[in-house]
Amino acid sequence: MPNPTAAMLVIGDEILSGRTRDANMHHLAGRLSAHGIDLCEVRIVADKQDAVVDALNALRSAWDHVFTSGGIGPTHDDITADCVAAAFGVGIDIRDDARAVLATNYPGGAADLTPARLRMARIPDGATLIDNPVSKAPGFRIGNVHVMAGVPKIFAAMLEGVVSELAGGAPLLSESVRIDRGESDVAEALGAIAARFDDVSIGSYPFQRDGRFGTNIVLRCPDRDRLDAATNEVRVLAS
Amino acid sequence: MPNPTAAMLVIGDEILSGRTRDANMHHLAGRLSAHGIDLCEVRIVADKQDAVVDALNALRSAWDHVFTSGGIGPTHDDITADCVAAAFGVGIDIRDDARAVLATNYPGGAADLTPARLRMARIPDGATLIDNPVSKAPGFRIGNVHVMAGVPKIFAAMLEGVVSELAGGAPLLSESVRIDRGESDVAEALGAIAARFDDVSIGSYPFQRDGRFGTNIVLRCPDRDRLDAATNEVRVLAS
Repeated sequence: MPNPTAAMLVIGDEILSGRTRDANMHHLAGRLSAHGIDLCEVRIVADKQDAVVDALNALRSAWDHVFTSGGIGPTHDDITADCVAAAFGVGIDIRDDARAVLATNYPGGAADLTPARLRMARIPDGATLIDNPVSKAPGFRIGNVHVMAGVPKIFAAMLEGVVSELAGGAPLLSESVRIDRGESDVAEALGAIAARFDDVSIGSYPFQRDGRFGTNIVLRCPDRDRLDAATNEVRVLAS
Repeated sequence: MPNPTAAMLVIGDEILSGRTRDANMHHLAGRLSAHGIDLCEVRIVADKQDAVVDALNALRSAWDHVFTSGGIGPTHDDITADCVAAAFGVGIDIRDDARAVLATNYPGGAADLTPARLRMARIPDGATLIDNPVSKAPGFRIGNVHVMAGVPKIFAAMLEGVVSELAGGAPLLSESVRIDRGESDVAEALGAIAARFDDVSIGSYPFQRDGRFGTNIVLRCPDRDRLDAATNEVRVLAS
């Protein structure tokens, strides 16, 4: 049975402008690989309703799971929850369970929930909350879409709770072989190996260090025997 | 006149598997911002022909420019040039100008061009070459799509040549204001400023450091006077 598939949607003006370098995508990719869920596509879009809604609808119909990051805070530029409600065609309002969770983050409890803070308790109808062990303001899941914060520490904490409850497939096993030659020197032999091992994903990643060219070969396959057999053939190229 | 728009397409199994953290997107975002071209969308797809072709066709029809990274080397997993040809519905073959450029990278010149190396001279019909000052193997431009290597040093070198020939718009000016309070404390006042300055993009980015919450406000606008006026109002929130 093939692994479950996933996509990520980053709502991120700050990434697109070059101000911030995304960290959540790399974290999600590693976490899903380890859990046997194949991350198949990532999109980064601007903080604009049409862009978010269109991307979300495309991704949620194409893949088993969608993970979003960013845009669920209390400020005017946090539009993700509204976009998700619009994408699913459901209503959105302040919800009692989210309000109660949020109140635990402030010394005065519910009395400290200003209108801005209450924005973080607005949850699309039918969604279930995602726990935020760092700063309480919850994420949520609706259908196959998991909506999480953009702050890396909070994103990672929310993700742990989410991933632990998802069915994973076979963790993808991988091996790397470093070859101290340029990739064009090994391309033909490597292509022949790849053709014979069509169940093993074989990627070739050239690098340049201290003026010399080299190639990292990364082999990935859920089957240990097949992975080892292909890796042994690639090692011959490296020797 | 609004700035030209752009999208990026990363062809990158190694990014999606979590093995490699993308560097080219962040570099492109900063470089385009400085040149007055608005990066509006990024997609990362697997090294699969259908995924690359579909994403490329969606992006090139939606935005003024598309920049791709990855998949133009000599190995079996380098499928970008073929995908671009398929997306444009044109042929692809080894081309004399690309072969001549490539030959300059090897001590024996054209005699060193093995079949694997010649794969890097396969260029879609109608494309023009993009100079690769690092390792010669050229990128190419066809229509509004700029196809570049994935190795960060080569991507950056190719991009310099490409961007210098593109018409830019007004470089987006930006100011940052750091506020040592959580963003929910300033959300309402900030929203009011954003509503009055609807020509200024105002983003709010919470952070947590040493257990304390803070908020970075980033204001962006091509007009210096409007940017300064909005920034001054935000600074009042910080004091």
